[in-house]
Amino acid sequence: MSSGENNENVIICVDALGADDAPGVVLRGVEQALGANSNLAVKLAGPEDCVVPFCENLGKNNPALKGRCEPLISTEEISMSEHPAKAVRKKKNSSIVLGCKAVAEGEAQGFFSGGNTGACLAAATLFTGRIKGVKRPMLMTLLPTLTPGKSTLFCDLGANADCKPDFILQFAQMAKVVLAQTTNNTNPKIGLLNIGEEDEKGTMFYQETNQLLREKLPEFVGNAQGSDLLTGEFDAVVADGFTGNVALKTLEGSIKTIFKLLKQTMMSSAKTKIGALLLKNDLKKMVKNLDPESVGAALLIGVKGAVCVGHGSSSDKAICSGILKTAEYAKTNMVTEIKKELNVEKA
Amino acid sequence: MSSGENNENVIICVDALGADDAPGVVLRGVEQALGANSNLAVKLAGPEDCVVPFCENLGKNNPALKGRCEPLISTEEISMSEHPAKAVRKKKNSSIVLGCKAVAEGEAQGFFSGGNTGACLAAATLFTGRIKGVKRPMLMTLLPTLTPGKSTLFCDLGANADCKPDFILQFAQMAKVVLAQTTNNTNPKIGLLNIGEEDEKGTMFYQETNQLLREKLPEFVGNAQGSDLLTGEFDAVVADGFTGNVALKTLEGSIKTIFKLLKQTMMSSAKTKIGALLLKNDLKKMVKNLDPESVGAALLIGVKGAVCVGHGSSSDKAICSGILKTAEYAKTNMVTEIKKELNVEKA
Repeated sequence: MSSGENNENVIICVDALGADDAPGVVLRGVEQALGANSNLAVKLAGPEDCVVPFCENLGKNNPALKGRCEPLISTEEISMSEHPAKAVRKKKNSSIVLGCKAVAEGEAQGFFSGGNTGACLAAATLFTGRIKGVKRPMLMTLLPTLTPGKSTLFCDLGANADCKPDFILQFAQMAKVVLAQTTNNTNPKIGLLNIGEEDEKGTMFYQETNQLLREKLPEFVGNAQGSDLLTGEFDAVVADGFTGNVALKTLEGSIKTIFKLLKQTMMSSAKTKIGALLLKNDLKKMVKNLDPESVGAALLIGVKGAVCVGHGSSSDKAICSGILKTAEYAKTNMVTEIKKELNVEKA
Repeated sequence: MSSGENNENVIICVDALGADDAPGVVLRGVEQALGANSNLAVKLAGPEDCVVPFCENLGKNNPALKGRCEPLISTEEISMSEHPAKAVRKKKNSSIVLGCKAVAEGEAQGFFSGGNTGACLAAATLFTGRIKGVKRPMLMTLLPTLTPGKSTLFCDLGANADCKPDFILQFAQMAKVVLAQTTNNTNPKIGLLNIGEEDEKGTMFYQETNQLLREKLPEFVGNAQGSDLLTGEFDAVVADGFTGNVALKTLEGSIKTIFKLLKQTMMSSAKTKIGALLLKNDLKKMVKNLDPESVGAALLIGVKGAVCVGHGSSSDKAICSGILKTAEYAKTNMVTEIKKELNVEKA
């Protein structure tokens, strides 16, 4: 993403309760993010006894951080297992709802949470608000690929299980804007996830969606398959949220499984242990590039602000990287450009 | 699978043209399969100038193979890229159609091809015929898992893009029969591929399917996710053919990508090359266990015979293993047991 060129300050609201190992892991992530980006300020949403002392003590060891984090006190908590829409409607004083409201009211330009994804989505839609003309906000992430330095934008990751073809057209249009805003790629190759290359493959629904993309989106290059997600052949691949979520979890699951088996194999004898030692540093680099956790946050696209959701199992590094990505995203002209692309406001 | 206990002879028809590197790779695969199973005989479907000399020369170096392969002469060929249903209707003298007919007429108990999957499916449905009561035949495979010695049966791999909930119920019932017949597992844990553990997750279609499985299938233990496919937690996972195909290709694609990156990493310096040398044998074993190609053939379940489809990119070993699996499958009571399970014929 093209941060660094823009030196304006940005305020990101962070959910102190959003992560399996919260708040400790979040607090460390906030400190790292503030250290890494001097134009960043954080509004930390969480219980008083957690966020107030953290904000007060911040900067005691590193004066550069002093005064750059301010508390946003929540009195309720939405757990990982709660029903998203119900929890968001009931718990107006939860860190997730307060964070999304802070963005709506301009007190922050973005919100980051590693908490309940469905609740973040519901709160962002209800309280931050959809961009005019957007039928359904969607979740996207950048997948690492075999092509060095290249990622593939993949969406929808599960915000919309039941879709209509025109939702998927909008996902593709929004993906196009994200690519232009974050990678300066203005001529992207966009694919539709399907079960064969030919236009007439797939369910009736996917055949119809393929036709719609052919008609309306000049950047559409045809169907992509599950095996194309990590090759770097496409700049973006779009799918309904059900198929997208299944594909994402299958991808993450296979990567995890292979890394586990690789570890077992390397620890299986004295000989393999020596081999592993020689490979250690290079393998670590490879694992880091592929690790879904380090790939980081999912961006919620289609709401009036930068809302990002990290993995519940995030480490402090992953939280830090999620906050920094939210800040970069908040500094783009994403909302205005999405309106233009969807013809809500003519350029 | 429980072969070896049953010493009756079995005749399998093999498509000499079914593989990217056909016929050479297929002929070597047939020879290996005949060598590995002394109760096996092969009917080899293909052009006269290919199959006749092969059958005549077989056994010149190894007398044990003599007379165990007989030609089935085809005069047409269905290519990988042809439209399945059209090709099958038009090319009645193709190896795929002749093979499926041989099974229907009792001249062979099974058919194996590494050719056009859609054409095999269409020919098997049209000429071998659906088992009475089966709404839709489906494709299944065994996925390798993290749990040593355990596979997970996964279906539908793409035979039916558009499904109804009761098709998926039947897929699960047929999977149950396959597990009982091939692994003696009579109390399997069967899952439905979905985007969350809770019954109410997923599209309206998947919510309805979940409810139907809860009502009708005692072996249904709930939703599985993409990340559960390789853990060994489920004995079988069922999905519609669109989602199943996307998940399978995503799985295969990620495994291939990681192996490629692993190879690159290992060849990146003198130090890593020495490390790789020490790990070579153990890694080969690991790769072999996970390699989708060595995992082998997809079984077509729901037709009146054992029809199996291998990867187009199959090696001779993969062809051999596919033929042996087809033979094992042909020796089970699958068809009778599927009728019983679907209540077409009472036990």
